[in-house]
Amino acid sequence: MTYCVAMRLDAGLVFLADSRTNAGVDQIGTFRKMNVFENPGDRTMVLMTAGNLSISQSVLQLLHDHVGLNGFTIWTAPNMYEATRIVGEAVRAIHQREAQALAQFNIEFNVSIIFGGQIRGEACRLFQVYSAGNFIEARDENTYLQIGEAKYGKPIIDRVVTPRSSLDDAVKCALISMDSTLRSNISVGLPLDLLAYQADSLAVTRFVTIDEKNAYFQMLRGTWGEQLRRVFEGIDAPQWQAMPGADDQPVRMPLPEAVAPVAAPPMLQSLAQQHGDPRQ
Amino acid sequence: MTYCVAMRLDAGLVFLADSRTNAGVDQIGTFRKMNVFENPGDRTMVLMTAGNLSISQSVLQLLHDHVGLNGFTIWTAPNMYEATRIVGEAVRAIHQREAQALAQFNIEFNVSIIFGGQIRGEACRLFQVYSAGNFIEARDENTYLQIGEAKYGKPIIDRVVTPRSSLDDAVKCALISMDSTLRSNISVGLPLDLLAYQADSLAVTRFVTIDEKNAYFQMLRGTWGEQLRRVFEGIDAPQWQAMPGADDQPVRMPLPEAVAPVAAPPMLQSLAQQHGDPRQ
Repeated sequence: MTYCVAMRLDAGLVFLADSRTNAGVDQIGTFRKMNVFENPGDRTMVLMTAGNLSISQSVLQLLHDHVGLNGFTIWTAPNMYEATRIVGEAVRAIHQREAQALAQFNIEFNVSIIFGGQIRGEACRLFQVYSAGNFIEARDENTYLQIGEAKYGKPIIDRVVTPRSSLDDAVKCALISMDSTLRSNISVGLPLDLLAYQADSLAVTRFVTIDEKNAYFQMLRGTWGEQLRRVFEGIDAPQWQAMPGADDQPVRMPLPEAVAPVAAPPMLQSLAQQHGDPRQ
Repeated sequence: MTYCVAMRLDAGLVFLADSRTNAGVDQIGTFRKMNVFENPGDRTMVLMTAGNLSISQSVLQLLHDHVGLNGFTIWTAPNMYEATRIVGEAVRAIHQREAQALAQFNIEFNVSIIFGGQIRGEACRLFQVYSAGNFIEARDENTYLQIGEAKYGKPIIDRVVTPRSSLDDAVKCALISMDSTLRSNISVGLPLDLLAYQADSLAVTRFVTIDEKNAYFQMLRGTWGEQLRRVFEGIDAPQWQAMPGADDQPVRMPLPEAVAPVAAPPMLQSLAQQHGDPRQ
């Protein structure tokens, strides 16, 4: 499995990828899923992949070999939209080449790609490319994209990230989102590739590989978990009586006459006095 | 879609279910997914369902009609294990009756059930029944079970709930878990059925139906989101320089000679001085 997340902010772009691949839990490996296309001063683009590793590596090979579209390659495309079309075309070329043979082994042609960056002359842009080679672009109302094991880490992003967030805040949130995913899915694993791109720099601004020894990530995980528990403890207990519908009844299956009601044990009666007997 | 969660604690059991069903987003309805089998003083059992509604309703009908196993019905089973076997048998009976016809329309036989409660003479027990009628039981090391849209709401439970948690804490956590799910998946919706069962009461201790107007749930959602953002803001920004591997380089695709490097714009140079030029 994989978890990759990218965020498009006014301040720039943030990309975070784990590095675990597995074919069943008995075959786990480490593969970098983040790849950078950088021509400093002209363009900086980041591509992250999830899905079938043989497919995503073949797509990368085509891009490495300068697959083109309308006479452009990824290095010469005039804007990010055209560059993303080239990525989509590479996916379609591999589909044409591989899908039938894979299907004979009931292997789905499954690849998903996050591709984003900036080409001189336009703003930062962020795209997600699907197995069919079609793609969508992140916009203000949905400023981040995820591929792979996306669900565990989604709620925290929805709560804190907006296009106005700073690069550092987005990095913080991406790492917390990754932490929640790491805890819940062992097929997502360290090390992490983290890249922060400052708008208009047209070069990689910040990159770091994060492993178990990374003190900042350790602090973040520890502090976040501990503070979360503190907030949890700080919230009032349910005020049952105050709730509208406190007298609601659940959907009960009818008690058959064949089964005579049993006299309530004393313990239940005391509970009934204490809480009000829910059977009335 | 559906989200149901149940927790097995020393103090008792907590059950929470949403009430939304959909056949595509253009056909959304409200169905109660929580059903109570209660013979006060003898047994109290709660059954929650996810998956194909026609299947889960037929399973419930069989239980209503006292489908039996080894001469026991769900009302007379000597313990929760045997009661759960009866639920599993009901699933298998419906599978035998329906699966083939559904398959002709490429409809998967898909139902999952959370079934838990207490029968006089043993402790509270909690089970999950699969489409094949087989089942697992929650234990101390994994004290909760989820069915349906489980992932969004899982991280918070992993962080705070243990078998030693109080009923009220478990209820609080279940509602926060549901809140994260509601925010991320519109096919999970209010109202919620919430049931708390106090160990050895052998009757429903607390039940409430929670809708938009429920003041406690509103407070919980608001406070949790706000406090989460506060905790987030309170965490230090990444200390890039201090990170081991701050000089790591990403996987770069080679820049083809055909594309001459572009002179870095002044903005980039100032950034390089500021951060250390990542291209070295």
